[in-house]
Amino acid sequence: MLNGMARWEPGAPDRLQEAAYELYTERGYDATTVAEIAERAGLTKRTFFRHFADKREVLFWRSERVTELVVEAVEGAPADVGPFEAASLGVVAATEFLNDRRPFSQRRHALISANPELQERELIKMARLSGSVAEALRARGVAEVEAAMAAEATMAAFRVGWERWVEPTETRSFTEVAREMLDGLRAVAAA
Amino acid sequence: MLNGMARWEPGAPDRLQEAAYELYTERGYDATTVAEIAERAGLTKRTFFRHFADKREVLFWRSERVTELVVEAVEGAPADVGPFEAASLGVVAATEFLNDRRPFSQRRHALISANPELQERELIKMARLSGSVAEALRARGVAEVEAAMAAEATMAAFRVGWERWVEPTETRSFTEVAREMLDGLRAVAAA
Repeated sequence: MLNGMARWEPGAPDRLQEAAYELYTERGYDATTVAEIAERAGLTKRTFFRHFADKREVLFWRSERVTELVVEAVEGAPADVGPFEAASLGVVAATEFLNDRRPFSQRRHALISANPELQERELIKMARLSGSVAEALRARGVAEVEAAMAAEATMAAFRVGWERWVEPTETRSFTEVAREMLDGLRAVAAA
Repeated sequence: MLNGMARWEPGAPDRLQEAAYELYTERGYDATTVAEIAERAGLTKRTFFRHFADKREVLFWRSERVTELVVEAVEGAPADVGPFEAASLGVVAATEFLNDRRPFSQRRHALISANPELQERELIKMARLSGSVAEALRARGVAEVEAAMAAEATMAAFRVGWERWVEPTETRSFTEVAREMLDGLRAVAAA
């Protein structure tokens, strides 16, 4: 719509996200309003709502991009690669996107961990991501049970790796941490 | 408290659960009130709230019992058994509790699948169960990463097995289905 385009602000989602994270950290997630986020970013509430459905969605911005990257990696895995390995390539793609976003990821993790409502949303998003991976595996001809197990297991490695990677003492990249988890999973299942 | 004891109704939680499931199925979860559930069960709202915090909790009744059974099985696994196998014994214990509750489990699954709020609660409960399994494994001396991976992977087998088991066409016990998933997970990870 022309009206919408006329109000386009370059970098608005980035600015809104940055402002939201600042306020969530300073005042807490619950105490922060959309009006305050928009004000801190020097933008209007209308601009906020053009980019995000609500203040919760700011924390899940780009999760669709991560899903795309993961699914593309699974779809693009060599034809002779098994389901676990194909799904692992998806996990690696996600970690590569996140590697240079560590301080941001740490803030995000702290915010989500402190709020049950956000934890629930995070779990739903992770479950959907796992479902997308399973679907991409089935599209490669993987049987349903194997697709579901490979997707769930590698996503478990992603989640456990994430918990480890955001720890202040962890110095490796997310990709390295996730590879350790995927190897650990293989070892644990094979033992 | 004497007051509470005087109002004790034998089998009240069972009757309330049965009434709730009937109403959720007939009218939908959102449209059903606690007052209606209590009335259908021939009990009072006060009795309802003595057993359940809200109408959502009716669907998660006994989930603590399942957690206990799972944790006991992991703790009681033979000392020479690895983390994946110990966690698998936990999954098997949960399935054995649920085997003779299939029609109930199918109704529950249909209700939860139809309601995002309930799905979120279910995911939180599953994540907590996985955390309890990891904790029980660490208490056996399993290192943190191995404990988390074994717990998450076997719980994934439990979840995927559950989705399969509640399908009308599935004729095997939950225990059999879950064993197939656990074997499938091993095979997928080893490939």
